[in-house]
Amino acid sequence: MSDILTALNTILEQRKSSAADSSYVASLYDQGLNKILEKIGEEATEVILAAKDLEAQSSDAAQRALAGEVADLWFHSMVMLAHLDMNPDAVTDILKERFGLSGLEEKAARTGHNTPP
Amino acid sequence: MSDILTALNTILEQRKSSAADSSYVASLYDQGLNKILEKIGEEATEVILAAKDLEAQSSDAAQRALAGEVADLWFHSMVMLAHLDMNPDAVTDILKERFGLSGLEEKAARTGHNTPP
Amino acid sequence: MSDILTALNTILEQRKSSAADSSYVASLYDQGLNKILEKIGEEATEVILAAKDLEAQSSDAAQRALAGEVADLWFHSMVMLAHLDMNPDAVTDILKERFGLSGLEEKAARTGHNTPP
Amino acid sequence: MSDILTALNTILEQRKSSAADSSYVASLYDQGLNKILEKIGEEATEVILAAKDLEAQSSDAAQRALAGEVADLWFHSMVMLAHLDMNPDAVTDILKERFGLSGLEEKAARTGHNTPP
Repeated sequence: MSDILTALNTILEQRKSSAADSSYVASLYDQGLNKILEKIGEEATEVILAAKDLEAQSSDAAQRALAGEVADLWFHSMVMLAHLDMNPDAVTDILKERFGLSGLEEKAARTGHNTPP
Repeated sequence: MSDILTALNTILEQRKSSAADSSYVASLYDQGLNKILEKIGEEATEVILAAKDLEAQSSDAAQRALAGEVADLWFHSMVMLAHLDMNPDAVTDILKERFGLSGLEEKAARTGHNTPP
Repeated sequence: MSDILTALNTILEQRKSSAADSSYVASLYDQGLNKILEKIGEEATEVILAAKDLEAQSSDAAQRALAGEVADLWFHSMVMLAHLDMNPDAVTDILKERFGLSGLEEKAARTGHNTPP
Repeated sequence: MSDILTALNTILEQRKSSAADSSYVASLYDQGLNKILEKIGEEATEVILAAKDLEAQSSDAAQRALAGEVADLWFHSMVMLAHLDMNPDAVTDILKERFGLSGLEEKAARTGHNTPP
């Protein structure tokens, strides 16, 4: 699985078990599934608005704003998975299957363009 | 950046430049930004519904269904980024900064495995 | 309750009881709650996109497009209520309570027109 | 147009012109279109969650909760229209055209089942 997503998932799992944790993530877990899903709906809307604003007027700031909204959307997706005791591997495995990515990963590894484990 | 996301992005970029491509991705690019953003809205809704169905009655099938919807949501997010000439690195860099993940990645690399306890 | 919403609700209720109905509404009822909720998610996204397009470039066509998307959103909300055996009166009653509209309605009735200044 | 929607629109238009208004609506206008559209995305998500919760366990409270979320969704749609200088008549006119409701309204008036003007 992706190194960055693995590392993020490690943090998300740790925060589930630390009862005294006062972090934002622990607060989401406490408020339950509906609150987490509300955040996914909100972040999807903010991605759409940021993309339209970038389309209307392109700039570095508009690109950073969109990247930040996508990060929020993916992050809250992972919080949801952790809350439901699911591993993001289940998601990336599906992406690999659908797009035949295992082969590409191997090729990328051979040509040294990125650094898989 | 994540190996799987890198590999997927490679495919998405290739399909942008192959004019004769009749794939689903090429069709999305042709229909433009609004169509891609509609898909993000749809997939976010389907994630929410699949999560509520899993909450109401847990099963392996319900978990696979949710993983599939999250895969669709992340996939269409990446199609959007490619359409707007952005790299998913911009997103994962933000996640790393926010969660101080660089250190965790290094630790994962040192301990030689991607599967956290 | 609003005359137009009452009339629309009458149609929606009729289509629930006509088993042989091959209309779009009957098809939605058959496909169940998730399908109807997917439509609400889709139409909300299309409202957002149409509003951003109107903001970027105003025109009569863009205004009509937005009005059409809002009509779709409200319509599918009413299909959902009918599917769940709820009456849109429950919604408009809440709007009346929150905004103290009963008085305004009476005034509109007294002055004998529906077109506020 | 619907009496209740007309009355609500009257209020929304009044609040646009009263600069010193510290109401929730005035605050939304001040924050601009994106903020209003974010609310539409949020309320659509909350409608979906409330409908799923009602499906999972029906109760009067669950029905009231759903009606409240639909009221929020319709209300913020009307705030958006007012912000964009559009009249909700544009929306209800489309609903009438699509569903041939003018005839039904006349019939409802003749049979006295509701009280159009």
